[in-house]
Amino acid sequence: MSRPRSKQPSGAPGAAQHGAVPATANGPWQRVGRRVAYQNPWLTVWHDDVIRPDGAPGIYGVVHFANRAIGILALDEEDRVLLVGQHRYPLDTYSWEIPEGGGGPDESALEAARRELAEETGFRAGSWRELGRAALSNSVTDELAIFFIATDLQSGAAAPEGTEALQTRWVPFAEALAMTLDGRIDDALSILAIQREALERAAAAPSP
Amino acid sequence: MSRPRSKQPSGAPGAAQHGAVPATANGPWQRVGRRVAYQNPWLTVWHDDVIRPDGAPGIYGVVHFANRAIGILALDEEDRVLLVGQHRYPLDTYSWEIPEGGGGPDESALEAARRELAEETGFRAGSWRELGRAALSNSVTDELAIFFIATDLQSGAAAPEGTEALQTRWVPFAEALAMTLDGRIDDALSILAIQREALERAAAAPSP
Repeated sequence: MSRPRSKQPSGAPGAAQHGAVPATANGPWQRVGRRVAYQNPWLTVWHDDVIRPDGAPGIYGVVHFANRAIGILALDEEDRVLLVGQHRYPLDTYSWEIPEGGGGPDESALEAARRELAEETGFRAGSWRELGRAALSNSVTDELAIFFIATDLQSGAAAPEGTEALQTRWVPFAEALAMTLDGRIDDALSILAIQREALERAAAAPSP
Repeated sequence: MSRPRSKQPSGAPGAAQHGAVPATANGPWQRVGRRVAYQNPWLTVWHDDVIRPDGAPGIYGVVHFANRAIGILALDEEDRVLLVGQHRYPLDTYSWEIPEGGGGPDESALEAARRELAEETGFRAGSWRELGRAALSNSVTDELAIFFIATDLQSGAAAPEGTEALQTRWVPFAEALAMTLDGRIDDALSILAIQREALERAAAAPSP
């Protein structure tokens, strides 16, 4: 398939019967079978046999994330944004972003945010507010992003994981916003947080 | 691992040797082996054996997307936004979004955008401009989103795929923006496009 945009019939008649689960409704879809195709500590791939909305048999590969994607827009008293730089393996590129990490099922999003900010940067924040949420790629994954604004910062010792070779830098908020507009920041979660905050400031500004 | 946030050593000494590929640098990481763990027409999962930035052996599961995620912010002459409603299987929820679809390797992003808008909604647009790009989930996937603004619309016959049970509605731009802020729109690509346009309008507005 040169342009595999749709879910085509999966073929073999017996294929829909593996997994031995009754058909499960998923909106206008039906799941008639599921197998775990891949699993690691961060993600599980389910390969589902489905009946599509048009009634034809098909497949759906779902990438299930173990963690929520937690992002922190940390602002100091000079209204500068804390950015973290690291190499992103899936894209093989260096990326400047807000501090981010995975929030596990045994902690709240806020607890995860506090922990990730402290681990990656050493900073603690006296004031936290949830800015927003988003489903990052909802045609394939169930990954949910939750992003916070953190102020009243106090520095401390960072404790990054062995996988994290991080740099940090401070940029004025207006510069961080400009970076999201010209591509110097292209990480979706970072853009969502910075642009959300920019819109809230614009809405709060006095009208002409 | 209750909170698998880091890439732990993969264990068996022989594991790093499968795939028979020389070590490949990926920033401060090294890939010493790769196998295709799962593949369907939309995504490939690579399970890589790696040397982490701290020198320890580990794994990296990468979700490689066959297509770019293309989004279209379509505005009519009354400054209303065209929204598409559909059930999103991975989240098992209904979602209102801008028109979106997969852009394949054999077409430009703009060609894909034109095609997706026409297929999903029947609309053609006389004027197109790229609004922005984003890496949707760069710690796990290589999925790239590219989003356009489309104006000077002409209606026609839609030709959705069999997987797409779509509704459409028009909402005033200000309402669409409000939906991205209160969670009625939570799809990241839709939020990125609508909020980007809102920021560009705010920047263009006369100063008080």
